[in-house]
Amino acid sequence: MKRDKYDKIGIIGLGYVGVPLAISLSKHFKIFCYDINKSKINDLKKKKLPFSYNERFNFKNTLFSYNHNILDECNIYIVTVPTPVNKINNPDLSFLKNATKMISHKLKRGDIVIYESTVYPGCTDEVCVPLLEKYSKLKLNKDFFCGYSPERINPGDSKRNLKNVVKIVSGSNNYSKKIINNIYSKIVNTTYQVNSIKIAESSKIIENTQRDLNIALMNEFSKIFNNLNLNFNEILKAASTKWNFINFKPGLVGGHCIGVDPYYLAYKAKKINIKPQIIIAGRKTNDQLSKWIAKKFIISANKFNIKKNNKILIVGLTFKEEINDIRNSKVFDLINALTKKFDIDVYDPMVKKNDIIKNNRFRFINKLPKIKKKYIGIIFTVGHKKIKKIGIANFLDLCEVNPIIYDLKNTFPKFNSSFKL
Amino acid sequence: MKRDKYDKIGIIGLGYVGVPLAISLSKHFKIFCYDINKSKINDLKKKKLPFSYNERFNFKNTLFSYNHNILDECNIYIVTVPTPVNKINNPDLSFLKNATKMISHKLKRGDIVIYESTVYPGCTDEVCVPLLEKYSKLKLNKDFFCGYSPERINPGDSKRNLKNVVKIVSGSNNYSKKIINNIYSKIVNTTYQVNSIKIAESSKIIENTQRDLNIALMNEFSKIFNNLNLNFNEILKAASTKWNFINFKPGLVGGHCIGVDPYYLAYKAKKINIKPQIIIAGRKTNDQLSKWIAKKFIISANKFNIKKNNKILIVGLTFKEEINDIRNSKVFDLINALTKKFDIDVYDPMVKKNDIIKNNRFRFINKLPKIKKKYIGIIFTVGHKKIKKIGIANFLDLCEVNPIIYDLKNTFPKFNSSFKL
Repeated sequence: MKRDKYDKIGIIGLGYVGVPLAISLSKHFKIFCYDINKSKINDLKKKKLPFSYNERFNFKNTLFSYNHNILDECNIYIVTVPTPVNKINNPDLSFLKNATKMISHKLKRGDIVIYESTVYPGCTDEVCVPLLEKYSKLKLNKDFFCGYSPERINPGDSKRNLKNVVKIVSGSNNYSKKIINNIYSKIVNTTYQVNSIKIAESSKIIENTQRDLNIALMNEFSKIFNNLNLNFNEILKAASTKWNFINFKPGLVGGHCIGVDPYYLAYKAKKINIKPQIIIAGRKTNDQLSKWIAKKFIISANKFNIKKNNKILIVGLTFKEEINDIRNSKVFDLINALTKKFDIDVYDPMVKKNDIIKNNRFRFINKLPKIKKKYIGIIFTVGHKKIKKIGIANFLDLCEVNPIIYDLKNTFPKFNSSFKL
Repeated sequence: MKRDKYDKIGIIGLGYVGVPLAISLSKHFKIFCYDINKSKINDLKKKKLPFSYNERFNFKNTLFSYNHNILDECNIYIVTVPTPVNKINNPDLSFLKNATKMISHKLKRGDIVIYESTVYPGCTDEVCVPLLEKYSKLKLNKDFFCGYSPERINPGDSKRNLKNVVKIVSGSNNYSKKIINNIYSKIVNTTYQVNSIKIAESSKIIENTQRDLNIALMNEFSKIFNNLNLNFNEILKAASTKWNFINFKPGLVGGHCIGVDPYYLAYKAKKINIKPQIIIAGRKTNDQLSKWIAKKFIISANKFNIKKNNKILIVGLTFKEEINDIRNSKVFDLINALTKKFDIDVYDPMVKKNDIIKNNRFRFINKLPKIKKKYIGIIFTVGHKKIKKIGIANFLDLCEVNPIIYDLKNTFPKFNSSFKL
C-alpha cells in the first residue's frame, strides 16, 4: 500500500550514526528520536550531543524520548542501533531484533522501515522482515516496505561526513527504493542505488573487512620486522614509492566497525559452508596484537627491578585518534595483559574521568603528575593531537632514567623510542 | 678497495627483468649479457627479444653469451635470475646460488655485485655474501661490495616501465650505494636510496605480498557471494563508492612474483618463530581457487550428458593479460582439475603452439575451430584484448545450445555468463 506523504521519521538508536542522521533530517522532516538510554535522551533534550559535532538539531522539528510511544505516528523508521558481537565473536543481533519487534507493533500500512546498522548479507530479509511481518500481521511489499542504507560514518573524521560521502540506497521493491532515495537525497550530495537489500548489506561489510585485513597484514609485517630488528617505518616508506602500494599502518583495531564487521561476514560464510580463512586470520591477528605488545613490553622491562618500581603510564585509551569513545578499545586488552606485572596509570586528554568505570586494573588520571622520576615506562597507544602538543620531553620528565618508551602509532616520529609498531 | 671506473656491466639472467635492464644500460655502458639458456642467447644475438618490448639494445655496446667467460672483465655484476619456490613452496635459491658462485670465481678487488631478484629479508647478507667471500677469498666492504635494487617490472604493462618507476637502491656500504645509485640514475627517472640491503629486500617483498593478499580477499569474497547467489560485481561497484575502498578484482594468481614472493617472506618469518597466518591464508586461498572453480564447473556440467559430448574450450593460458608467458599460470591447475571429466581444447591468441609441451591433458589450438555445436562449455580465464575483439557471439557459435560459459575475469561484461568470479 502506497502512501501520499512520508514526513514523520523515527530514528531508533542515537549513537554516532543516529545523531548525525537525525540532525540532518531534522532540517527537512519531523523527527522522532528514540533511544533506550535515559541519560543520553536527557542530554539531547538539553541540547548536549554525545560527541563533538559541527552541526546542530533543528529543535522545532525534533522530539526526543526514551519512551517508544514517541514513534507511534511515524511513517518512516530508521534503525541505527549497534550490531556488536558476543563473547564468541558471533553477531549479537539483540538490539536489532528488539528495535524491529518494537517497530513491528507500530507498523501501519504504507510505512517504510530502513536499516542502517551493519549486518551480514541477508540479515534484513531473513531476520528483520520475518519479525516485522509476524508481529504486525502485515505483508512486506503489500502492506509495508523495507530498505537498507548502510551507514558510512567515520568517527573523528570531520572531512568525510554524512553529506559528502556517497550514500548507498536499497529497497524491498522499486517503490520503497524511490521513496528512500528521495529522503536521503535531501541530506546527502550523492546517493547510489543498488538492486537489492542484500547487495547493499554486502557492499558495506566488504568495505570494513578489507580495511581490517589490510591493517592486520601490516600488524603481521610489523611483528616479523620487529623480530628481525628492521625498522618497519623505513620499509613502509620505501614500499610506498611503488605506484600501487597501499598505505596502511599497523595498529590496534578496536571500535564498533572494523574490528566487528568481519565477524558478521565470517558468520554468514560459515552458515553456507565456506570457511573464511583470510577474514578470520585477519581478525585473529588484530585481536592478538595487544598481547604480543604486552609480552614485548614485559621483556623490555626486565632491565628494571620491578619489585622496587613497577609504575608505568599508558597514554591514550580511545579506540582511535580524536574521539572520546573508549568502547571496544583494544587498549583495555593491553592493560589486562600488563596489570599483573605493573602499576598502571592511564592518561587520555580526550576522555572524561566519569566515563571510566572504577576498577583495580589501572588508575585514570586527568592531569599528568608533577612528580618526576616516577614511571619506568610509557606506552603511547593513541596519537591524539593533544598528546602530540604536550611533546615527548614533558613525558620523559615523568620517567626514571632510560625508560622504556613504546610509541605504537609513531606519535613522536623524531623520538627514537624502544618500540614502534 | 675503490675503483676509478665502473664501466663494464655483466647481466646474469635474461628474463623479463634482465632484458629491459640490459637494454637501458646498453645505452650508457658496455654490457655483457649472460644466460644459461642457449636458444635465448641465440635469439638475442639475432636481435629477437623473448617478449614484445618497445625499446632495443644498443648492439655496439652489447655482447651476448651462454658462456660465462664473457663476464670475466666486468666490474659490475647485476643478478636478475629467477627466485621461484620448490614443490613445498619454500624458496628455491638454486639459480641465485649458482649465479653467485659463478660470479665469486670472477670477483676482483673493487667489483660490485648487485642483486635484483626478489628474496626474503636477509638473503643477500646471509646467503649470497658468504658464498661470494668463500670462493673469491675476498672480504665484503674491504675488497668488494654488494647492493640490492629490487626489480619492479610489471610484465605486460607498457605504462609503468623501468624508466618511470621509482628504483629502490641499497648498498653494503655508502661507497657502493653511491656507485649503484649513479648507475641506475642513468636509466631511471627517480631512485630512492634506503639505509640497508635488508630494508630494500623487505620493501619489495611486502609490496607483492600486499597485492597477493588483497586479491586473495577478493577471491574469498567471490566464493562467499557466489554461494549466496549474489552478483559480486554489483557489490564491488557499490563498495567502490566509498572513498577508501581499494579496487581489487578476484582472479587466478600465477606468474613469478605475486604468487611466489609471499612464500619467501613466510619462510623467513617461520625461521624466526613467527607463524605468518595472514600471508599463508592468502596464498592458500589463491592457490586453491582453480580447484574451486573446477568443482563448480563440473556441477554446472551435470545438465549435459558428458558421456556423449564432453568437449570444452578454455580461452586464455597465460598468467595475466597481454603477455605470452605461460609459466606458473594457474590455468594449468584448472585444466588438471578438469582433465578427467572433459575433453579440453585450449585457445590463447598470445601463445605460440611451440611453447606448449606436448601432453595428453589438453589440445592447444592456434585457430578457433570452424565446426559448430562442438563445445558444451567455455571457460574464459584471461581477458586479452585479442579475445575481447573476437566477441562473445563468435565463441557461442562454437557451442551446443545453452552452453556453460564461465567468464572468470569478466571479459564480456555485458554477457550474462553462468559464472563470473
